[in-house]
Amino acid sequence: MIEKQLLGQWTDALASKAPVPGGGGASALAGALGAALGQMAANLTIGKKRYADVEDEMQQSLFALNILQMELMALADKDAEVFAPLAAAYGMPSATEEEKAEKDRVMEKNLLAASLVPMQMMEKASAVLDVLGLLEEKGSRMVVSDVGVAAQMARAALNGAVMNIYINTKSMKNREKAEELNEKAEKLLKEGTAQADEIYGKVLKKLKG
Amino acid sequence: MIEKQLLGQWTDALASKAPVPGGGGASALAGALGAALGQMAANLTIGKKRYADVEDEMQQSLFALNILQMELMALADKDAEVFAPLAAAYGMPSATEEEKAEKDRVMEKNLLAASLVPMQMMEKASAVLDVLGLLEEKGSRMVVSDVGVAAQMARAALNGAVMNIYINTKSMKNREKAEELNEKAEKLLKEGTAQADEIYGKVLKKLKG
Repeated sequence: MIEKQLLGQWTDALASKAPVPGGGGASALAGALGAALGQMAANLTIGKKRYADVEDEMQQSLFALNILQMELMALADKDAEVFAPLAAAYGMPSATEEEKAEKDRVMEKNLLAASLVPMQMMEKASAVLDVLGLLEEKGSRMVVSDVGVAAQMARAALNGAVMNIYINTKSMKNREKAEELNEKAEKLLKEGTAQADEIYGKVLKKLKG
Repeated sequence: MIEKQLLGQWTDALASKAPVPGGGGASALAGALGAALGQMAANLTIGKKRYADVEDEMQQSLFALNILQMELMALADKDAEVFAPLAAAYGMPSATEEEKAEKDRVMEKNLLAASLVPMQMMEKASAVLDVLGLLEEKGSRMVVSDVGVAAQMARAALNGAVMNIYINTKSMKNREKAEELNEKAEKLLKEGTAQADEIYGKVLKKLKG
């Protein structure tokens, strides 16, 4: 589990030639950092007299982001887990028609699994952005910059994870399924990036205005 | 030191109401993740026959990114270190003219220190992007998606760190110095963001084309 690893060990493993952790794991972690920073903003709003009327929303934001952080951390692990069977499938024999058919079948299954994990990262990062939008609007102005940084982290998670979808759907034989996944990913990417940029822009305005 | 902390502990500390780690630390870590992913790409290019003619450039990239990763991790720690004296300065007495003058002097010094750390993050993240540009162009196509994710991490580092510059320069009395810092930060932000988006766009083209 990623949580139980030393930060320096994990980043060194990321830098190594080992295939995992890689871009998928880093994207999930960036999303988790965004969820964590959002919680910091909620935590520093809760209990402040000036923000008493949004206390419930802050508690709900905190709760939602705490779960999203855990889910995104778990997706970093899951991303590494789905890679091994995919790498093994690439090495399957394909000399005979039977071998080829079996390799295709196993590849297809593993490519799909390796696409669905980054898709979940994108869904979770989008959910983080939904909460960050609320925190930007109603949270303490003292910590609005952390909400802005959080939006950048979620944005990086979305734009990072989508790459791992494209790589895997590219090799899928079932083009209909591949296109369906690509379209879903593009929609999440477009909407999430716009949402992140909007939150960030509003934070900048508060900071500089 | 951040390297010696468990990943789960650090992210939980980020989520807590403790002022550090906060947006600055997360930005530095995102930059370090970008530097690490770039090293992965270099590591997976080095030793490959097809990329033999760029071996030296890959080795140099690996070396440069390894140092940048360490520097960015150290900046996450440094960011937490400069916060404590700044927070203490906010609490200094200001009843008399002498106290007020002394508080202003200490505040100004600490605001500057707290601005220079994220500025260094931005410089290091920009340096990461310079290397990523080379890796996108000349590194193995097998790992180009990791270069794309790395560019997103460096982009998040830049766009995150700049917020901590704006917050601190906003309170500085020396407006000339403050404007000088803001202008430098904006230049790094504009150029670095464009560079990250260009690298990412090229990677997307290779992945989808």
